[in-house]
Amino acid sequence: MTPQEFTEFLHREIPLTKAMELETLVFGKEFLSLAVPLAPNRNDKRTGFGGSISCLMTVCGWAMMYANFREEYPTGKIVVQSSQIRYLAPILSDFRAECRCTDEEAKNALRQSCKKFRKGKLKLEISCFCGETEAARMEATYYITE
Amino acid sequence: MTPQEFTEFLHREIPLTKAMELETLVFGKEFLSLAVPLAPNRNDKRTGFGGSISCLMTVCGWAMMYANFREEYPTGKIVVQSSQIRYLAPILSDFRAECRCTDEEAKNALRQSCKKFRKGKLKLEISCFCGETEAARMEATYYITE
Repeated sequence: MTPQEFTEFLHREIPLTKAMELETLVFGKEFLSLAVPLAPNRNDKRTGFGGSISCLMTVCGWAMMYANFREEYPTGKIVVQSSQIRYLAPILSDFRAECRCTDEEAKNALRQSCKKFRKGKLKLEISCFCGETEAARMEATYYITE
Repeated sequence: MTPQEFTEFLHREIPLTKAMELETLVFGKEFLSLAVPLAPNRNDKRTGFGGSISCLMTVCGWAMMYANFREEYPTGKIVVQSSQIRYLAPILSDFRAECRCTDEEAKNALRQSCKKFRKGKLKLEISCFCGETEAARMEATYYITE
């Protein structure tokens, strides 16, 4: 799946991502990045809206699960279970979320769990950047059920 | 401010709330509730989108701060600092966020802090309901800076 195809998939299946004008910068199993322009994601102070930031990071983690497991579990449902967010700095222009996921042990633990229980989970870290500034950080647990 | 006026304020100042078709059900200092229809806030499984849920709850807590403190601190900025969310059940129809804030001691602590440091914070609990089912729960800290 190309970044462009994934963007089209999101816009079609999750309408709010279209309203956010979300675009996929990188769609990979180890690194994934999604971006949005400020204008549709601003707040009353003309900075990045906290709701858009949490939404973008939530989708970014979900996308990482999708990138890794959609082929192995084509009928599996990927769902966010919990998240913790810290907002670190105001956002003054367009912003993006990034997720890195190179922990093969954790991915294999999910696969083992799916084999036994038909469900498994994975904890991901997602950061939100505005330029080089880290503006928010999220830890979230996602699970997949077959 | 009436619920209708607050809805108009949100739609004008935070464009994503308009895309979500967010409506204010109750706008009060002790109880506040915001609702959205499922259609613009659905995911690929035709259930409530996690990003919309987190966004709605984040705005709900922000709105509670605004309802309580906008008159006392007319130039103050209200910002979310951190949040923790647990997603409890899938959402199958229109949903709403609710926040109750009757802790006068905590509100006074924020006022004292503002007097001394020109900023203060408050922890709020926000729940997301679909009918009578609690579908998600958030604890979040908001602060106000003068």
